[in-house]
Amino acid sequence: MKKIDDSKNRQFLLDLINTKDFVENLSVDCAIFGFHEDKLKVLLLKYHDLDLWSIPGGFIFNDEDLREAAERVLYERTHLSGLFLSQFHTFGRRNRTENNVHQILLKNKGIEVPENHWIYNRFITVGYCSLIDYTLSETFPDAFNESIEWFDVDKLPQMAFDHERIISEGLQHIRKNLDTQLVAYNLLPEKFTMNDLQKLYETVLGEKFRRNNFQRKMLSLGTLERLEKFFDGSPNKAPYLYKFKESEINFSD
Amino acid sequence: MKKIDDSKNRQFLLDLINTKDFVENLSVDCAIFGFHEDKLKVLLLKYHDLDLWSIPGGFIFNDEDLREAAERVLYERTHLSGLFLSQFHTFGRRNRTENNVHQILLKNKGIEVPENHWIYNRFITVGYCSLIDYTLSETFPDAFNESIEWFDVDKLPQMAFDHERIISEGLQHIRKNLDTQLVAYNLLPEKFTMNDLQKLYETVLGEKFRRNNFQRKMLSLGTLERLEKFFDGSPNKAPYLYKFKESEINFSD
Repeated sequence: MKKIDDSKNRQFLLDLINTKDFVENLSVDCAIFGFHEDKLKVLLLKYHDLDLWSIPGGFIFNDEDLREAAERVLYERTHLSGLFLSQFHTFGRRNRTENNVHQILLKNKGIEVPENHWIYNRFITVGYCSLIDYTLSETFPDAFNESIEWFDVDKLPQMAFDHERIISEGLQHIRKNLDTQLVAYNLLPEKFTMNDLQKLYETVLGEKFRRNNFQRKMLSLGTLERLEKFFDGSPNKAPYLYKFKESEINFSD
Repeated sequence: MKKIDDSKNRQFLLDLINTKDFVENLSVDCAIFGFHEDKLKVLLLKYHDLDLWSIPGGFIFNDEDLREAAERVLYERTHLSGLFLSQFHTFGRRNRTENNVHQILLKNKGIEVPENHWIYNRFITVGYCSLIDYTLSETFPDAFNESIEWFDVDKLPQMAFDHERIISEGLQHIRKNLDTQLVAYNLLPEKFTMNDLQKLYETVLGEKFRRNNFQRKMLSLGTLERLEKFFDGSPNKAPYLYKFKESEINFSD
């Protein structure tokens, strides 16, 4: 667990509430899922002095595209960059930010903020998600948070706001689009076996497949190119290697 | 073409700019597609005094859920209600509302508005879409607009803001989700033939299918239930009737 010490947190909060050039009422939140071997995890940040976790999120500057904001916020909060981020849903229930975590955080640090300050507004948030190999990326929390950790998707701690719902809908989006977007996630080596691919699908989708059915379905998608056999000493059983065909991914925002 | 006369427009604009309880910087826009026989259309509104069209859109009240706002705005602008509205994407390029149509509309009516008024802010917009049978729904423009019309999706007039892009991405969403959401769109009678279904797919997707391939693909989805044959006088060639199986559709916002 990587920790940020408390003394930096007060200054961070002061800087944040003095910022005046954010788009009002709107935020971005990123549900980042991590895959490795047979584990599926999600990246969470813990607030200072509170037993409460959140996904990395933040505000949009007036002179910034929405997608740029999502990329900047994710980098500032976690040090992750260069991910394939998909916008999947905008969350706008009127009471989603009523349980005001920010108010408690500011009070804990003895920072006084007028009641009509923008940070207490209702926020509608645009959700982005991605899937990465969590062993390949270094993460680090910013001073807004105390620590950063990968949690199993089915063992979440106490979450702020509607972040549990955002994670759940983000995961649905990843699962629904795995066939077409897998190539963008960069989770497999350039050449891989059908068995590698099946393990990935089973972990992300949370279900088991029969070997033959899985292979038939994957080949029918037309996204794989069959290469040479993978020889590791037992030539009769050597499996074929595959790679993804080139494809176009839409990065619109 | 249904028309709203000009005199109501000035009062509508005055009421709009005096409204103070909207969520700032955020709007909703609805791309409503219409299907009938072999035509696919989209519903557009024409601004008063301008040769410029838009899809029905508007603002979100502070005490309203995002989805409620989309439903209300669509009803106020067009008189459509009870549609299956899917949220598909949030459009947030920084310059998307720079070409300020509202400024021109207000100036044309001699209404003076301070430069820092919220209506001149940057707006990020949440896109909703739906597909209906355009012969079954009565539409009527509100006083913000002069007229309302169904246009062929490939023959759009001059569009305001980034509405052409919103239409294009909305149509992509409808096409991509046709298999799973068709039951919600209510476009076919309760019992229909495979030929009815094929015509609908061909029109919406804009491509032709071979009869046998289409039937095989549709049956493999598992969403259809086969019923009795449809007798219309030539018993040997009578086609089967089908209906959709009950399914759950997610209306989240």
